[in-house]
Amino acid sequence: MLDLTQDVRDLTAAIVDIESVSGGEKALADEVERALAALPHLKVTRSGETVVARTEQGHSERVLIAGHLDTVPVAGNLPSRVEGDLLYGCGTSDMKAGVAVALRLAATVPAPNRDVTYVFYDCEEVEAERNGLTRIARDHAGWLAADFAVLMEPTDGVIEGGCQGTLRAEVTVTGKRAHSARSWFGVNAIHGIEPVLARLNAYEPRRPVVDGLEYHEGLNAVGVRGGVAGNVIPDLCVVSVNYRFAPDQSIEEAEEHVREVFDGFAVSLVDAAPAARPGLTHPVAAAFTAAVGGTPRAKLGWTDVARFSALGVPAVNYGPGDPNLAHQQGEYVSLPKIVESERAMLDWLTI
Amino acid sequence: MLDLTQDVRDLTAAIVDIESVSGGEKALADEVERALAALPHLKVTRSGETVVARTEQGHSERVLIAGHLDTVPVAGNLPSRVEGDLLYGCGTSDMKAGVAVALRLAATVPAPNRDVTYVFYDCEEVEAERNGLTRIARDHAGWLAADFAVLMEPTDGVIEGGCQGTLRAEVTVTGKRAHSARSWFGVNAIHGIEPVLARLNAYEPRRPVVDGLEYHEGLNAVGVRGGVAGNVIPDLCVVSVNYRFAPDQSIEEAEEHVREVFDGFAVSLVDAAPAARPGLTHPVAAAFTAAVGGTPRAKLGWTDVARFSALGVPAVNYGPGDPNLAHQQGEYVSLPKIVESERAMLDWLTI
Repeated sequence: MLDLTQDVRDLTAAIVDIESVSGGEKALADEVERALAALPHLKVTRSGETVVARTEQGHSERVLIAGHLDTVPVAGNLPSRVEGDLLYGCGTSDMKAGVAVALRLAATVPAPNRDVTYVFYDCEEVEAERNGLTRIARDHAGWLAADFAVLMEPTDGVIEGGCQGTLRAEVTVTGKRAHSARSWFGVNAIHGIEPVLARLNAYEPRRPVVDGLEYHEGLNAVGVRGGVAGNVIPDLCVVSVNYRFAPDQSIEEAEEHVREVFDGFAVSLVDAAPAARPGLTHPVAAAFTAAVGGTPRAKLGWTDVARFSALGVPAVNYGPGDPNLAHQQGEYVSLPKIVESERAMLDWLTI
Repeated sequence: MLDLTQDVRDLTAAIVDIESVSGGEKALADEVERALAALPHLKVTRSGETVVARTEQGHSERVLIAGHLDTVPVAGNLPSRVEGDLLYGCGTSDMKAGVAVALRLAATVPAPNRDVTYVFYDCEEVEAERNGLTRIARDHAGWLAADFAVLMEPTDGVIEGGCQGTLRAEVTVTGKRAHSARSWFGVNAIHGIEPVLARLNAYEPRRPVVDGLEYHEGLNAVGVRGGVAGNVIPDLCVVSVNYRFAPDQSIEEAEEHVREVFDGFAVSLVDAAPAARPGLTHPVAAAFTAAVGGTPRAKLGWTDVARFSALGVPAVNYGPGDPNLAHQQGEYVSLPKIVESERAMLDWLTI
């Protein structure tokens, strides 16, 4: 059985060495469930390969600490190995170091100063519909009820508040086909996207401050396709754009903005995921930032914190891993950072 | 055996009814070879499914009359059928009506006023390397020696002189990949094609007069591709352009022009086919235009006349079919136009 009394660095290595590529988390989820179920101060439930453990101390405040158990595919980087202060291996940074910290807190803080829900979930690294958090939010939303959530994704030990939303849309220009030898009988749809690109090049992204954090939006073409054959004036050209929007906007407002930017063109929404407010103005968050220290920054990429935000739970990203090493063959985590992270979280839940 | 003594309209129908989709011309080529070989005034040779027949009267002038035997795939439009003045069926316009006229001339003009080479070739409707004329020009260029050539492609009974050349090139813009949530760390290659499109939109095509005919050039995007994934700033975008150039330019000059238009961008040549001068200033061409009547116009699309031009043989397109019906399921040819075309060609070779 997973020994939760061991040092957090050793626990990280132990967890890394239980391979858990997305879809193959069962062995690790079993170990986590068994170890937590052995602790009398926790109420443990499970759904699929997601394990939820709660303290029930009757506090007026409840915080949620979450981490995903899965990793990207192993790339010859298991078992883990230590080199100096670094622990190498698949999932060290993203995010078994964070999971180890959460497990240590679950085991060593039987009477926290606020009730805690620990969530260890599956399939974060694959499509959203397989994501364990998506499933829990849909089938057991009550399990996720909390005043504040910390998602232990790698942030290099810095609090990253909320996340930006993302929206993809297609801007379509139509024309009229003709043989390219008599091009003046046609209307060239590829030529017709020039003003679409001009608007993108002229676009000035907003950098709004939300709950004290500065976000940084972006509107970009991420794809373009057009063309029928080498001798045909094309009658269709489609520019795919991606809008990353700050958490002061809803999906609907973001869509409206994109439609305004491309006013006069046919715009169709492809998909969107909401932004999440950082929630750092909440008192329990203030206690968290005080315990962790440093200056919180805005999370620009989209993460699962948006799922908490959608349930009305303000959430931040915070973890000992290095986000720049995520998904890389040479992934590692700094061992002192794990210890530091455990210390900060312990302070938050005990002082 | 194909009866070359029958009326040209009936002969057209007879030829149309011998299916000859590109690659399947053998039955028709056999019939053509057998019918021509029976005529004592012709010297007949064959290469693959291409049949060449020559008069050897010792004239100082030799003209060449060519037509392709193949058609695009049959689309439920065989056998042929007559409705009023129209003959419907696959290949009627493109170009068995022209082939029928040429066969009638070969059969009924045993002593033309200038020597004639008749060329009936295969695989015009498919890729250039399978084209019978490409093969003959490479392996038996002497067979194509002439002072002037008439390619009986459908032109609605109007002489269309020469043809424009065609050149395809790729204009490539590179950038730098980045996650679209932090787009300012990247350089968006799709955004980078805006000036390429601006130059295309501002482009003023030339309309030069060559040998008395006005051509009309065109420079167009015929394809665009770019994009890595919905969350990645793309580092590559390629615009495929097609330049249709008048016969006062060589391929080299056309390429140089395209490179000048896109100065500052990476331009790579994909393929090119030369233009062909109309050659209407040659005396034998003057006799031809006098016989056919009407006002010759410039051929804007690329045709096999360029292959004759490349061999130093001025060439025109002239045939009874309607070019706008080519490759269409409802293809037909006007029966009076076939008769008119036979009459005009007969005048040219006998008066």
